[in-house]
Amino acid sequence: MSDPILLTPGPLTTSRSTKEAMLRDWGSWDSSFKAVTARILDRLTKLAEGTHAYACVPMQGSGTFAVEAMIGTLLPRDGKVLVPVNGAYCRRIVEICRYLGRTAVPLELLEDQRLAPDVLAERLAHDPTITHVALVQCETTSGIDNGIHELAKVITKAGRRLLLDAISAFGALPLDLRTVSADGVAISANKCIEGVPGAGFVLCKRDVLAAAMGTAHSLSLDLHAQWMHMEKTGQWRYTPPTHVIAAFDQALSLHEQEGGTEARGARYRQNCNILVTGMRARGFQTLLPDALQSPIIVTFLCPGDARFTFSKFYDLLKSRGFIIYPGKITAADTFRIGCIGQVHAEDMRRLLTVIDDCLRDMGVTNCAPALAA
Amino acid sequence: MSDPILLTPGPLTTSRSTKEAMLRDWGSWDSSFKAVTARILDRLTKLAEGTHAYACVPMQGSGTFAVEAMIGTLLPRDGKVLVPVNGAYCRRIVEICRYLGRTAVPLELLEDQRLAPDVLAERLAHDPTITHVALVQCETTSGIDNGIHELAKVITKAGRRLLLDAISAFGALPLDLRTVSADGVAISANKCIEGVPGAGFVLCKRDVLAAAMGTAHSLSLDLHAQWMHMEKTGQWRYTPPTHVIAAFDQALSLHEQEGGTEARGARYRQNCNILVTGMRARGFQTLLPDALQSPIIVTFLCPGDARFTFSKFYDLLKSRGFIIYPGKITAADTFRIGCIGQVHAEDMRRLLTVIDDCLRDMGVTNCAPALAA
Repeated sequence: MSDPILLTPGPLTTSRSTKEAMLRDWGSWDSSFKAVTARILDRLTKLAEGTHAYACVPMQGSGTFAVEAMIGTLLPRDGKVLVPVNGAYCRRIVEICRYLGRTAVPLELLEDQRLAPDVLAERLAHDPTITHVALVQCETTSGIDNGIHELAKVITKAGRRLLLDAISAFGALPLDLRTVSADGVAISANKCIEGVPGAGFVLCKRDVLAAAMGTAHSLSLDLHAQWMHMEKTGQWRYTPPTHVIAAFDQALSLHEQEGGTEARGARYRQNCNILVTGMRARGFQTLLPDALQSPIIVTFLCPGDARFTFSKFYDLLKSRGFIIYPGKITAADTFRIGCIGQVHAEDMRRLLTVIDDCLRDMGVTNCAPALAA
Repeated sequence: MSDPILLTPGPLTTSRSTKEAMLRDWGSWDSSFKAVTARILDRLTKLAEGTHAYACVPMQGSGTFAVEAMIGTLLPRDGKVLVPVNGAYCRRIVEICRYLGRTAVPLELLEDQRLAPDVLAERLAHDPTITHVALVQCETTSGIDNGIHELAKVITKAGRRLLLDAISAFGALPLDLRTVSADGVAISANKCIEGVPGAGFVLCKRDVLAAAMGTAHSLSLDLHAQWMHMEKTGQWRYTPPTHVIAAFDQALSLHEQEGGTEARGARYRQNCNILVTGMRARGFQTLLPDALQSPIIVTFLCPGDARFTFSKFYDLLKSRGFIIYPGKITAADTFRIGCIGQVHAEDMRRLLTVIDDCLRDMGVTNCAPALAA
């Protein structure tokens, strides 16, 4: 039996050739591996149009490690960061600040609500002690696209600095650092670039990074120290996840071959459209209106029909080759289906017929959510 | 051309089947992957005879991430740790403490010197404010086996707590937690268990870990929070390096099939003996006397012959299929050759004949070091 297709916010289904790039052992000190790292850092910087003004610094671990490294290194110890919160990943930034003893001010929103630019502008105008704003480009808790381009303009206009968690969006949603002026952008290997998990990267404004010596709270997560070391030696400070990095290099090649961020985003959007249209035709409701929906992951309200249980639905789908994801929002019973990874229109169409089979097996006839039922 | 053999302290040459375990994408939330993680944690605990009293907590990133997580979580904020320093990895523990604002007292040794148990006993007797001692089981800066079993006895007898960096030793040098009473033991996936890099683990005394809530300086590196989450859900807190973990599971199976720590250590010791005997026959000198030499990696003094340069030697060896490692000690010009990984007696014998070819190409006739020449 072939492996199930992962319809999750990551780890996700990757290309065979990406995984095959891991069939080799690399000496991390060796020039061949240094060349792989250098190529990756260069490609990521170019993907975000960050050439010259930005340095790309590698950080091993999950996306959270990269985000914590970004906050710990680029937010000065006496900084004060405003964090709009409409999901778990925004909230995690607040938690990171609590661990680090940095001042974070949460700006609470509903989970299906996007921060309005004028609300942000007003908040910044009323609190001149806020030095930074941390944004999550796509909050996979719900699947909301937080519309960071408009917000970034407000932040820059107000003379504040932006720290951007682009983990789940980079490589599929556009990001142009010539217009979005961020001090730092956190990226993960295993989201829309479709690498395997185990590494992240932070695009850092060079002057901000240069001024960040001694700011980090952690040796392992110190981006300034990693940057200095990389500039001097071309090497990671500590044994890198060589296989993960080799896979990411191949994933970047495939991203480029597909046509870059625009084409990758278009494929995901098509996946998302097929999914949402098909699910709505079956009576399911999405949490978000289309205007707020990212093409990364979609939250559906659980049917009110008592014969529907998520665990049963999950198991039936898994037995038929699809792994979906539980809901994460707090306000309602939901589940999530991802649109990213090596997943194509035909997979989404097959998923819909498989969902029909699963619902039939469960005896679920009405897919309308409890509230609307 | 086949891949070069890595004779380094890691990343190292791994088995084909270990790498092939990465040819599958796992859903990290899925029960199949949870079972892999649970099996690994159980196996590691048993390998150290830590059952019942110890919890094994996973931590992604290199060994340094695991060591920092161990220090950050298990060394109380008002603790004071004595750190015998005879190499870069001991010194790194001091640096970690500096970042974290924890009190570390270095006990400086020469790089080819092992701490004597009576010196440690005396030091602990004279400073009752020392609460912990951090030891590195095998310091790969030189390749010295730090003889931690005798030191552990002294620490326990003095009523102090031990934090052990077993990164480069675990799985090849013996460690029995029934006799070595450590609060924490840091382990890496890609040393003597022969997995690929990207994950570490910390064996933690359960009562010490339970008392460590709120101690960690970092969200990502908080072992207590990871432990709580794993106990409750069977999951990693943040997206794990699924492919690295699947490879490690396979590496543990191969370790078991080979005969466990004793057989693995015996193979490395044979590799080391062939290497040292052969190199000495060619006029090379080891940094360490045999009594202090671990079977993990060997430091050789560079020949005094002016025709010998490390970079040339490295390149010639690489072109013939072997990757070695630069020296790391500060006192002399050296290079290092590792004995660990999927490397066997015949590889070491072949290496020696290849070294002959390289020396001939370089025109080096006298391999005695400068000091002794």
